[in-house]
Amino acid sequence: MTDELPGTSLKAIGIVRNEIKHPLKQDWEKVVSDIVVDSSLTEALDGIEEFSHLIVLYWMHRVATTGRLPTKVHPKGRQELPLVGLFATRSPQRPNPVGVATVRLLERRDNILRVEGLDAIDGTPVIDIKPYLPGYDSVANAKVAPWVTKH
Amino acid sequence: MTDELPGTSLKAIGIVRNEIKHPLKQDWEKVVSDIVVDSSLTEALDGIEEFSHLIVLYWMHRVATTGRLPTKVHPKGRQELPLVGLFATRSPQRPNPVGVATVRLLERRDNILRVEGLDAIDGTPVIDIKPYLPGYDSVANAKVAPWVTKH
Repeated sequence: MTDELPGTSLKAIGIVRNEIKHPLKQDWEKVVSDIVVDSSLTEALDGIEEFSHLIVLYWMHRVATTGRLPTKVHPKGRQELPLVGLFATRSPQRPNPVGVATVRLLERRDNILRVEGLDAIDGTPVIDIKPYLPGYDSVANAKVAPWVTKH
Repeated sequence: MTDELPGTSLKAIGIVRNEIKHPLKQDWEKVVSDIVVDSSLTEALDGIEEFSHLIVLYWMHRVATTGRLPTKVHPKGRQELPLVGLFATRSPQRPNPVGVATVRLLERRDNILRVEGLDAIDGTPVIDIKPYLPGYDSVANAKVAPWVTKH
């Protein structure tokens, strides 16, 4: 479908530990997870406790990466929602199954970050952690497709 | 430093085209870029024009991935700012040099997305495009480290 980028094998910098063994359809907001960062990287977390929120990038390892990827999907797997291009959705089935979640940092203890709202199951490899910077990451009055707010 | 994840070679789904040949220190907000998506994925963009903002994941291909990574850095390369862990910063030098940018979508024409505010140089491989969902991606009253707002 597209070219593989040479030299882009990802490294797991940590792993998600929580009670969630199978993906939820929703209600991730209150899920508490520990991100256990590789102990060689403990110092690389210094100062992160000064931020209330983090952006976590993770590898959706349970998503099949073989076989033909659909180019269009029903958002949230709901058949009554319109069929739209996969890049117009947050479907985990994507050419590169990398999830991006904005989470609340509850506590840091050494190499372990306790966070709230991470929508990843137990055992998910974490590939990056960034501080959430409102001036850069936040948008006022963003417009979304009508299906996003359909109940 | 950390384990390589098997099967995680990334695919370029598109490429950044703009006038910026060398990274800027700041002032990316008004930079206009075209993301030229692989033409096999044109349909996967259908419906994206209903969103005002997108989250773009890109591979920071110019960052050296060999050699020893610093665990602590001066944010923004400014020596007067405190030395903090790399995960407390947005430094491009990270175990997985994946950038995350929230950008304004100005126009879609077939497989080309014209966006504003993408902090990536010309030729940067794009690995994912997601719709920006305020209820999921936006945080009110996020706290940041004091150095973030230091001029």
